[in-house]
Amino acid sequence: MPILLERSEIIKSSIRPSVAVADGKIFIMANTEQNNLMDKIISLCKRRGFIFPGSEIYGGLANSWDYGPVGVELKNNIKQLWWKRFVQSRDDIVGIDASLIMNPKVWEASGHLATFNDPLVECKKCHHRFRKDELYDVWMEKTKGKLDDKNKINSCPDCQEELTEPRNFNLMLKTFLGPAEEAANVVYFRPETAQAMFVDFKNVLQTTRKKLPFGIAQIGKAFRNEITPGNFIFRTREFEQMEIEYFIRPPKTDEDWQSVFEMWRKEMIEWMKEMGIEIGKVHELEVSKDKLAHYSKRTIDFEYEFPFGIKELYGLAYRTDFDLKNHANASKEDLSYLDPETNEKLVPHVIEPTWGVDRTVLAVLCSAFDDSDPDRIVLKLPYKLAPYKVAVFPLMKNKQELVSKAKEIYDSLRKNFMVAWDDRGNVGKRYYSQDEIGTPFCITVDFDSLEDGAVTVRDRDTMKQERIKIAELKKYFSEKLDV
Amino acid sequence: MPILLERSEIIKSSIRPSVAVADGKIFIMANTEQNNLMDKIISLCKRRGFIFPGSEIYGGLANSWDYGPVGVELKNNIKQLWWKRFVQSRDDIVGIDASLIMNPKVWEASGHLATFNDPLVECKKCHHRFRKDELYDVWMEKTKGKLDDKNKINSCPDCQEELTEPRNFNLMLKTFLGPAEEAANVVYFRPETAQAMFVDFKNVLQTTRKKLPFGIAQIGKAFRNEITPGNFIFRTREFEQMEIEYFIRPPKTDEDWQSVFEMWRKEMIEWMKEMGIEIGKVHELEVSKDKLAHYSKRTIDFEYEFPFGIKELYGLAYRTDFDLKNHANASKEDLSYLDPETNEKLVPHVIEPTWGVDRTVLAVLCSAFDDSDPDRIVLKLPYKLAPYKVAVFPLMKNKQELVSKAKEIYDSLRKNFMVAWDDRGNVGKRYYSQDEIGTPFCITVDFDSLEDGAVTVRDRDTMKQERIKIAELKKYFSEKLDV
Repeated sequence: MPILLERSEIIKSSIRPSVAVADGKIFIMANTEQNNLMDKIISLCKRRGFIFPGSEIYGGLANSWDYGPVGVELKNNIKQLWWKRFVQSRDDIVGIDASLIMNPKVWEASGHLATFNDPLVECKKCHHRFRKDELYDVWMEKTKGKLDDKNKINSCPDCQEELTEPRNFNLMLKTFLGPAEEAANVVYFRPETAQAMFVDFKNVLQTTRKKLPFGIAQIGKAFRNEITPGNFIFRTREFEQMEIEYFIRPPKTDEDWQSVFEMWRKEMIEWMKEMGIEIGKVHELEVSKDKLAHYSKRTIDFEYEFPFGIKELYGLAYRTDFDLKNHANASKEDLSYLDPETNEKLVPHVIEPTWGVDRTVLAVLCSAFDDSDPDRIVLKLPYKLAPYKVAVFPLMKNKQELVSKAKEIYDSLRKNFMVAWDDRGNVGKRYYSQDEIGTPFCITVDFDSLEDGAVTVRDRDTMKQERIKIAELKKYFSEKLDV
Repeated sequence: MPILLERSEIIKSSIRPSVAVADGKIFIMANTEQNNLMDKIISLCKRRGFIFPGSEIYGGLANSWDYGPVGVELKNNIKQLWWKRFVQSRDDIVGIDASLIMNPKVWEASGHLATFNDPLVECKKCHHRFRKDELYDVWMEKTKGKLDDKNKINSCPDCQEELTEPRNFNLMLKTFLGPAEEAANVVYFRPETAQAMFVDFKNVLQTTRKKLPFGIAQIGKAFRNEITPGNFIFRTREFEQMEIEYFIRPPKTDEDWQSVFEMWRKEMIEWMKEMGIEIGKVHELEVSKDKLAHYSKRTIDFEYEFPFGIKELYGLAYRTDFDLKNHANASKEDLSYLDPETNEKLVPHVIEPTWGVDRTVLAVLCSAFDDSDPDRIVLKLPYKLAPYKVAVFPLMKNKQELVSKAKEIYDSLRKNFMVAWDDRGNVGKRYYSQDEIGTPFCITVDFDSLEDGAVTVRDRDTMKQERIKIAELKKYFSEKLDV
């Protein structure tokens, strides 16, 4: 069955070949094999403890997902590598961690209160609501692609009654702080991490005395009341972002900002390589002038060929001085930068690279998933991302001398690496389990080990086995794993 | 001015000496020196970039706080050490990271919807609301301790009109998922991380096949619509928890659960030591039987002498099988454990140690803060927690050969450690800055360095200076910092 992408994405994708035209409209089909691939990944995630449906025992909740024991390690590895690469290893970027709930004036100034909307139509009878721009897709799905009368798409897909004109529906999650549920107490959970970097700009500048160009980075949750969340962890109402606002001097020429933009474009590609994301499946979409967000002078979407279609993975935008100026106006605070050499006051411009954490996890899983060998499924994760780096097995669980020797190795290695222990079933089954969670190396302690002080080390990707001296294991893995 | 603690805390604290009796009531006064200490810590946090008021340019928001560049490093160090200690270094604990928004049935089953309430009274005229049990304190503060008529506390502290009877006010933050703001779409942001471990229990058990006893750990945000948040990051509406649900076999004797409880009590004390929290200021409060939460058979509060009073830092509770049984009943899912040896089905009991992340940060800051030397303020953070481990200074910023040599050292050391760079002002001022953010070591590159290949290393705590060969710096710091 074809998967219909949202209209906006169809439009964006229509420049590329993987697009079909049917029924006079453009849409993309993800083929059956691809759908199966997604099912296999979701199944692996659940089976091995990467990702479970949220609140599953209560029937779940609106496409929410929980990270399980190996999933949280994978996700933390991604976040920590990002932080190390873009904050700790750079002189020009510092981090913050701001509250998820900010003063509502922030969203007034940023424009989110007024414009962060989806146009919804409502059925005059059953009161179900739909995104106007998705009605066609909903109808196509309902009729399994056999829409007999195009006028139908102006009626309710559920009861076929008349729909209202589109009305704006704000995508921010709202709540009330304080004892009374009244307008004065309404606040919003942030729909993006970005605004905190602008709101805290002055405090960061004053405490770090950074000089332009410099960036403020943040990893944290954001929330959007999406009408149609979906595609596993691709679009959820609660998600995590890794984001940098990189401040530069107001450009005198286009080249001034374009060179920084280009630096970040390359950095984002390098990052994808570090994550093991298949670069051949990544597409750069230059957002056309007429589709740019109001604050942006240039935006690139990095899109990835997910099994369910080509979809946005990361974004890179030149936001000009839109945000700092808006917040300065709205708050009456001076958010300018004093050039220490010229004594000139200026409002910095900003280049914004944005990464979704959950989308990174998903692209990493899709890239790493390999079932080309009929005998096993293997997650070929980059070593740095693997939840466990090494697994240790005693050949048999009932032979105390094997178990003790294996435990000894396990205890010694785990001082330096994340190490798994498995003594269940036979060695073949254990390899199978470790391959599915992407453990790069497995050690088996056998009877020979007790004699020759060596063990069998098996490589996840090549499946080759090597005999390594126990005393050399630490050095061996340090080199292999580059830690 | 005395700081009045909440009633519940007054009661809890009345067994200890730091309590005063006045106006016929028991309360605790934090003395002026202690208040000044809190002011000094808050001021340092803002001045150096540990913690800023949230949304400050818009006048803040209800005691919300943002972690700045050094604050986020400190907080991340705490969280990572906790995860390493309690999850990655242990065979018997695995982690999860669940959604902040869970199915509302979770809160129905846990009892939060029905009982997670504060009793509030409302003024019949101005409609301001107050916690019934805090009215006395509010009045005492308003009258600066000179309450002339005790009946007054039954009237509104703002307009002195009549108050309603207390009504229950649920402390969970609610929002709406989906397009319509109607009852069917109401969901809550979790008020604690704990429930996710029970709701995901079955998935974790199935994927990890852990054997009892084992624990599920989580670090994440939780939300409570506190009527009176306050005391800096001590009580905020949005906060972060580190929590473990440690599952054990249903105890046959009290000793069975008490020994596990005792293991965790000791682990929590060891953790506080690792954090550099002054153990002399930590009090264990055995919660008396009549004050235990309905689910708990035993609870210990670890309290810390904060500058504003003795307040709860961590908690340790024996929750029995209350939670798993409740969720099994409510969800109709089998949440039992099958003993692999006896084939017996059982519902595990649970011991729950809980740590507040933000309270840990605060206790760490209070313990590390030292202004006993009139010439400097120093944060004597444990090395592992310090945002930067080493700072590198060129003696003068205008001498290119000093700057190059210093940069060389900086670039080489930062491959292994978090290293700060400072070339502003004179060396004395730079020491002053680094002391305030707790950097254990400062390196100065001077003219002699160019000749003898050595630098001056200054120790934060002793202020002693040593001459160390540049070639030996990495080894020197690896040993000192134990990394």
